[in-house]
Amino acid sequence: MTGRLEILAPDGIPEVQPGADLAALIGDALASDPRIGLLRDGDVLIVTQKVVSKAEGAVVDLTTIEPRPEAVAFAERFDRDPRQVEVVLREAVRVVRMERGVIITETHHGLICANGGIDASNVGAGTGDVVTLLPRDPDASAARIRAALLERFGVDVPVVVSDSFGRPWRWGIVDVAIGVSGLEPLEDLRGRADHDGRVMRSTVRAVADELASAAELALGKSTGRPVALVRGAEIVRGEGSVRDLLMPRETDLFP
Amino acid sequence: MTGRLEILAPDGIPEVQPGADLAALIGDALASDPRIGLLRDGDVLIVTQKVVSKAEGAVVDLTTIEPRPEAVAFAERFDRDPRQVEVVLREAVRVVRMERGVIITETHHGLICANGGIDASNVGAGTGDVVTLLPRDPDASAARIRAALLERFGVDVPVVVSDSFGRPWRWGIVDVAIGVSGLEPLEDLRGRADHDGRVMRSTVRAVADELASAAELALGKSTGRPVALVRGAEIVRGEGSVRDLLMPRETDLFP
Repeated sequence: MTGRLEILAPDGIPEVQPGADLAALIGDALASDPRIGLLRDGDVLIVTQKVVSKAEGAVVDLTTIEPRPEAVAFAERFDRDPRQVEVVLREAVRVVRMERGVIITETHHGLICANGGIDASNVGAGTGDVVTLLPRDPDASAARIRAALLERFGVDVPVVVSDSFGRPWRWGIVDVAIGVSGLEPLEDLRGRADHDGRVMRSTVRAVADELASAAELALGKSTGRPVALVRGAEIVRGEGSVRDLLMPRETDLFP
Repeated sequence: MTGRLEILAPDGIPEVQPGADLAALIGDALASDPRIGLLRDGDVLIVTQKVVSKAEGAVVDLTTIEPRPEAVAFAERFDRDPRQVEVVLREAVRVVRMERGVIITETHHGLICANGGIDASNVGAGTGDVVTLLPRDPDASAARIRAALLERFGVDVPVVVSDSFGRPWRWGIVDVAIGVSGLEPLEDLRGRADHDGRVMRSTVRAVADELASAAELALGKSTGRPVALVRGAEIVRGEGSVRDLLMPRETDLFP
């Protein structure tokens, strides 16, 4: 019987430090969770951005940052940290919107999100002076974790690196994919007949984003559970990239 | 041990006809799925829009529709059905974008989405001449299903009505909430200390949207499984509304 999915977020991953072997920490946590047992076909591992960034040293000490005048002015006007605004601008290839205290940028990855994905909470420094950047190449981050788990457990588990993004028109953040390895992030149902035998049009599903959102429900936000295993999702294996999810600017109606 | 979620999509819901007692059909399917057993605290039921619209008779026979010249011109230019374009415009309180074959409107609910949520696939008419509209009041639809399940099973299970929406900047659709009953669709973590003891800012999570996306992974797209039970999510009970999820136009940076 299908139509069943399980999401398991193991405990036991300690505070991640720069240079940490994240795949080993994840492997230990998976191996010691009796609910998980052996990894199997149909499992997908979701890893949240922050631990990836921390392990890869994608962090910035704000005390080293000299903000440009534009960052100082924006920060003063909207009660923000000018050094953090400066880092957001440095990481941007394009500013999409910068108003009302919100900065939406396009990062070098092609991701469009608030503050370029730069985040101060849960960094573990305690002082508020350290922020995480997005991983330099989140597909590669996912691939490295996938390869290490394959080496250790002999099972090829697709990996999604996730982050929390806002959306136009709707309040609240949801987790989406910012890096993938071992699966096709888009499932293209166009041309497949639907339940009535009619041919569906324009039905391309962002499975990797739905996996990220589903995993988040099991993580909680402030609990020190940075990864979740989704078991039973019917994903399409493949060598997809987060770039498959990103709409080129010329196609987008909200550039 | 927490950090575990299960999603169960029962089979056995037949083709839904206008006037059908959807809550009874859902109740039967839940009751006859041995994996589900008794409903319990912590369960959330996700019901996809199309069966709700069908049961409520929120369908339009396109053969009765006389398209306005603007709809005819747009449809001719982009190879679309002018009658469907007409229905989209009739259901709109505002056209957000209408270009390159895409119509993004704001519906009377305040939802902003492609084609006003009007959908031709899986309607079950076989002819392509019938489309579903969004339910007139999806919060009320959710409340009716919730009340019927409470009456029948004695358990108060929050209900989310979901639909598949596209997003700016990213390819692919994901399921989001268009109606809720019995839960707070936004979880406001602002002011709560995170794992490091730092206070999180700007962290409001769209839990109802993540529930909808998670459920979709268990439904599949063309399988005749229109509902899923999410078991184990830490939701906040309450009398929230989908309106809580909708950003007012004056706040949005992409009006």
